Amino acid sequence: MNTSSNPTDPLHHAAAVIGLGSMGYGIAHTLLSSGDFRVHGFDVVPAQVERFRDEGGAAGELQTVASTLDTVVVVVLNAAQTETVLFGAQGIVPHLKAGAVVIACATVAPEFAVTMAARCAERGVHYLDAPISGGALKAAQGQLSIMASGTAQAFTAARPALDAMAENVFELGETAGPGSAMKAVNQLLAGVHIASMAEALTFGMKQGITADKIVEVITQSAGNSWMFANRAPHVVAGDYTPHSSVDIWPKDLGIVLDIARTLKFSAPLTAAALQQFVAASGSGLGAEDDAAVAKVYARNAGVELP
Amino acid sequence: MNTSSNPTDPLHHAAAVIGLGSMGYGIAHTLLSSGDFRVHGFDVVPAQVERFRDEGGAAGELQTVASTLDTVVVVVLNAAQTETVLFGAQGIVPHLKAGAVVIACATVAPEFAVTMAARCAERGVHYLDAPISGGALKAAQGQLSIMASGTAQAFTAARPALDAMAENVFELGETAGPGSAMKAVNQLLAGVHIASMAEALTFGMKQGITADKIVEVITQSAGNSWMFANRAPHVVAGDYTPHSSVDIWPKDLGIVLDIARTLKFSAPLTAAALQQFVAASGSGLGAEDDAAVAKVYARNAGVELP
Repeated sequence: MNTSSNPTDPLHHAAAVIGLGSMGYGIAHTLLSSGDFRVHGFDVVPAQVERFRDEGGAAGELQTVASTLDTVVVVVLNAAQTETVLFGAQGIVPHLKAGAVVIACATVAPEFAVTMAARCAERGVHYLDAPISGGALKAAQGQLSIMASGTAQAFTAARPALDAMAENVFELGETAGPGSAMKAVNQLLAGVHIASMAEALTFGMKQGITADKIVEVITQSAGNSWMFANRAPHVVAGDYTPHSSVDIWPKDLGIVLDIARTLKFSAPLTAAALQQFVAASGSGLGAEDDAAVAKVYARNAGVELP
Repeated sequence: MNTSSNPTDPLHHAAAVIGLGSMGYGIAHTLLSSGDFRVHGFDVVPAQVERFRDEGGAAGELQTVASTLDTVVVVVLNAAQTETVLFGAQGIVPHLKAGAVVIACATVAPEFAVTMAARCAERGVHYLDAPISGGALKAAQGQLSIMASGTAQAFTAARPALDAMAENVFELGETAGPGSAMKAVNQLLAGVHIASMAEALTFGMKQGITADKIVEVITQSAGNSWMFANRAPHVVAGDYTPHSSVDIWPKDLGIVLDIARTLKFSAPLTAAALQQFVAASGSGLGAEDDAAVAKVYARNAGVELP
């Protein structure tokens, strides 16, 4: 329900979603649908902003509305974009009121989250370290998983938005950092499992088994993973529409290995998986669905994919 | 129900299970419980043979009873033991009647399965390439998954035993080979996923997250796998009772990489995972549960496991 026609209702919260990509747009849509928020949507692509306003999003320039906001959900690509949005030349934090909360959803290093939280705190702004998981479809349905950490005040301020966005909110600690640390653990596994899906599927095909038979058997066997079941059908269908792109993985596994090197943690599977995604990106597949890492294996082994 | 007291019943099949380890004993028990079989159990460990006879297993030496058997289920460790059991100095195949079927359950190279099937065929004996998956508990409950291939006659002859042993029988082709090829695909994934479980769990702990919190979150997230959900709790509990041992993996991932090298298939994740299991075995953990590969990661990173 779009209740932006009643912005003075005391039950209303004012939110901005910064970054209207596939995840951010879904989140903005969900907040709007909940009926509890006046929602502003911002993006570097004007057409996305227009599209969201046509759906019921509130008008106004970012810096103009900043002081009215209770909640800012930042759904950009990486740490650099997060910092620009919060503290860059046009950054929003200096314009927020004290007690507002930033919900930071990008996958970033825990140390970066700690720094952002401290800089927000200097302005009296709460910061929730809140990486998201689940994909664009779950974002649009308000069924994300959020790996969150932050102060009790940050959680309290963020609660109405979290309730609208998420099916699961994992509360991982009272400071920024653990949320991003858990997201890094998840991304390590997710990236390795996408690459192992590709390795196993093409290995079976090289032995003469058909891709659809492999998917049928493995999804009922101990070799299954969430990512195998989700991504292997893309290879079987020959459909590389980017639900999540190859180029996510050099970034996210890069974050994992940066953390690992800093902590002197040896992560050989992550390192091997990263190289396969780098090879996929380097051979022009960066914008395809991440299941296209199978094309690297197929090319290296002379396997013809569906 | 034990019906070995009525061995002349025309509905009865005569079966032998060779190899009464955790998987083989469960299979022998299941065949016996079905009430459709007279079941002989054989093992190099006399106590296991005695234990099975006490449960209702039929008596008699292997070579004496061989000519009475309809079905021989071979549940040994590897290809070398399979060949010894079938064609060694005391091998059973020369003593089987024409039309009997060998159900070969070890994880072996597809090429080996092809050779065994051809040698059995020379004697008029059917060979079902039938690697099993599911673990000791499912073996004892008649709920294995079997990745099977062989001639129509081999399947027909094996059917009563397959029905008793398995919840899922995947029929993968009309010759020996594809069953073992699919098992290799499954083992590639299973081995990589156990190692990635260990890598991710210790990576999270190194960042200060507790192991039980990681398991709670990941099993509800996109980073989950069948193996993560099954094995990570062993690490959380500090319980390395070998349900499936570390030493399985240098063997099985070795088979995968032997096939891969022969076919010129590059498998970098499998290679990385294999090295972690070799390090686990080399540091004295070979007989522990395969989740103990986490100890290699923990030692390398100065992480203390539960």
